Amino acid sequence: MSTPDAIRWNEDHLELLDQRILPGTSQYLSYRDPFAVADAIRDMVVRGAPAIGITAAYGMALAAAAQAPQPSVAAWTTALSGARQALADSRPTAVNLFWALQRCDQLIETHGNGGDLPEAMLALAAEIHREDIDINRAIGDHGAALIDNDSLVYTHCNAGALATGGYGTALGVIRSAWKNGSLRGVIAGEPRPWLQGARLTSWELMQDDIPVTLAIEGAAAQLMREHRPSWVIVGADRVAANGDVANKIGTYNLAIIARHHGVKMMVAAPTSTFDRQIDGPQIPIEQRPAEEITHSQGNAVAPEGCAVHNPAFDVTPAELIDAIVTEHGIIYRPDREAVAAHLDAAERS
Amino acid sequence: MSTPDAIRWNEDHLELLDQRILPGTSQYLSYRDPFAVADAIRDMVVRGAPAIGITAAYGMALAAAAQAPQPSVAAWTTALSGARQALADSRPTAVNLFWALQRCDQLIETHGNGGDLPEAMLALAAEIHREDIDINRAIGDHGAALIDNDSLVYTHCNAGALATGGYGTALGVIRSAWKNGSLRGVIAGEPRPWLQGARLTSWELMQDDIPVTLAIEGAAAQLMREHRPSWVIVGADRVAANGDVANKIGTYNLAIIARHHGVKMMVAAPTSTFDRQIDGPQIPIEQRPAEEITHSQGNAVAPEGCAVHNPAFDVTPAELIDAIVTEHGIIYRPDREAVAAHLDAAERS
Repeated sequence: MSTPDAIRWNEDHLELLDQRILPGTSQYLSYRDPFAVADAIRDMVVRGAPAIGITAAYGMALAAAAQAPQPSVAAWTTALSGARQALADSRPTAVNLFWALQRCDQLIETHGNGGDLPEAMLALAAEIHREDIDINRAIGDHGAALIDNDSLVYTHCNAGALATGGYGTALGVIRSAWKNGSLRGVIAGEPRPWLQGARLTSWELMQDDIPVTLAIEGAAAQLMREHRPSWVIVGADRVAANGDVANKIGTYNLAIIARHHGVKMMVAAPTSTFDRQIDGPQIPIEQRPAEEITHSQGNAVAPEGCAVHNPAFDVTPAELIDAIVTEHGIIYRPDREAVAAHLDAAERS
Repeated sequence: MSTPDAIRWNEDHLELLDQRILPGTSQYLSYRDPFAVADAIRDMVVRGAPAIGITAAYGMALAAAAQAPQPSVAAWTTALSGARQALADSRPTAVNLFWALQRCDQLIETHGNGGDLPEAMLALAAEIHREDIDINRAIGDHGAALIDNDSLVYTHCNAGALATGGYGTALGVIRSAWKNGSLRGVIAGEPRPWLQGARLTSWELMQDDIPVTLAIEGAAAQLMREHRPSWVIVGADRVAANGDVANKIGTYNLAIIARHHGVKMMVAAPTSTFDRQIDGPQIPIEQRPAEEITHSQGNAVAPEGCAVHNPAFDVTPAELIDAIVTEHGIIYRPDREAVAAHLDAAERS
């Protein structure tokens, strides 16, 4: 695995690989201020649901380190509330962000009355980071078992090492399948507006010598008809209680097009991406700035004042999904009961 | 109608509006050499099936004007064969190009033994140009009759005034529906790699004060679910004998997604876009240079050496199309018999 780390801790500060300028330039930006970390998440320096969760935990570690020691759980909660709010407000759809912040809240409960909270918070962030890599390897192995020999697969956006602590979710499955020898190649959808498939997924796979062909989203149906991939494999930003999946805009397109061609649809996501509290239609969908669409590479590509729809995510109904793969195994034909059974079993294990 | 002409003849030379730099810059390029006209078609200075046909006819007029008078049909045919070949080779998918060149061939047959061929060729090009505007107004009126009151419609790429002699095919239907008062608004898909929906369609519609909202292709399914357009309306580069339609890559995606949501699919195209000689699977699909995908606005957005699929068109099967609208009326639920009946009636009329 040769993809550089998206996130790294360097003694007393956080470093994020600036994913907006990859693959042309590899540059780490340094963060000592949790509010700047929140801005980095919003501005897409770091992206991908698991990576955002890890980054938010490090943001809380920075916030705790910047505080004078507090005497109590209540005092720590108050002292960190501004940073916590800024991180929570950075992006609304990926639930891993809130999951990580809740783990930080629990840590305040258990460590807030002692003096070691900053150290404990940093240890927690590092643990979430390390855990995520192990989780992705488990997802990769479970998912790869579904992939028949000599398969071509189609992936969308980037659910790779760069979107996670390392190894990746969708690209974790692809890496494991490649290791197993069952993969013939990968089609990577680019997608607009940020072109993560072009800039990140192609780059990750080429570094691992996995054969990848880049295509625009518009070519999906024609490619599925002509090249017959066995699976579309994507990550997730939030898996709802009813099995619906919020993921990068364009995923719902692909799920419909895949079903039309008899191509199976796989979602690869850790259980930290699940939200048992809501169903698909209730998932908050981030609307991103119009400039992401009206401009490309800094140049205007639409008339001034043009109205724009720019949802960053869409919700794919569970009935279009053949398998959701987590670190605990596979949910076939997800629905409310299958999701609940999987998560209940995971909690017991 | 305030969209500037894509194509204009100025005394002794052709002028093409450079569509690659719209809407930021309106600049006409001048052509006196038919080989340069062929390059302009290939390089997307002018695009859109009807506009390419008109441009090719003017290219033949330039070729004829540059020749010394020839004594015979055979001599004219030989003298113009190089330019004809270059124009025919410029782009393979849009059949209007070949249709226009065949009209030029017929003109050589009827005028090649007299001395007035250059004048006659220019008159033919101007006639094809003028005809196309009338044809588009007829298409617009036939198509608009299908659009219920208070409709939102979705269009893809640019099948507008800029893609034709004027008024547009898909945008002709939209302009006529707007005039009828039946249209609430338009969603314009941008699409990659050339962003004609952003750069051209939004611009055309805003100039005519028709409410338009721009979206990336990835948002199509979510927008159809949430905003319920009544029709997807697109142009065509070639309509096959069996009713299959080649059009800008991404059209087949939209047809599948529209059918999934109960949104109807309309193709607006003149009869010059029909090819009775072949079925959909035989339509030659142009593969464009990888750089259109690996680069955006002149900047690299993919790793060097990345493999790319870049088909410029796809083929939508007839069974996903609800109506094909021509200047002669409407083909409902197109299939081989309905297409043949429509074209036979058109030829008799």
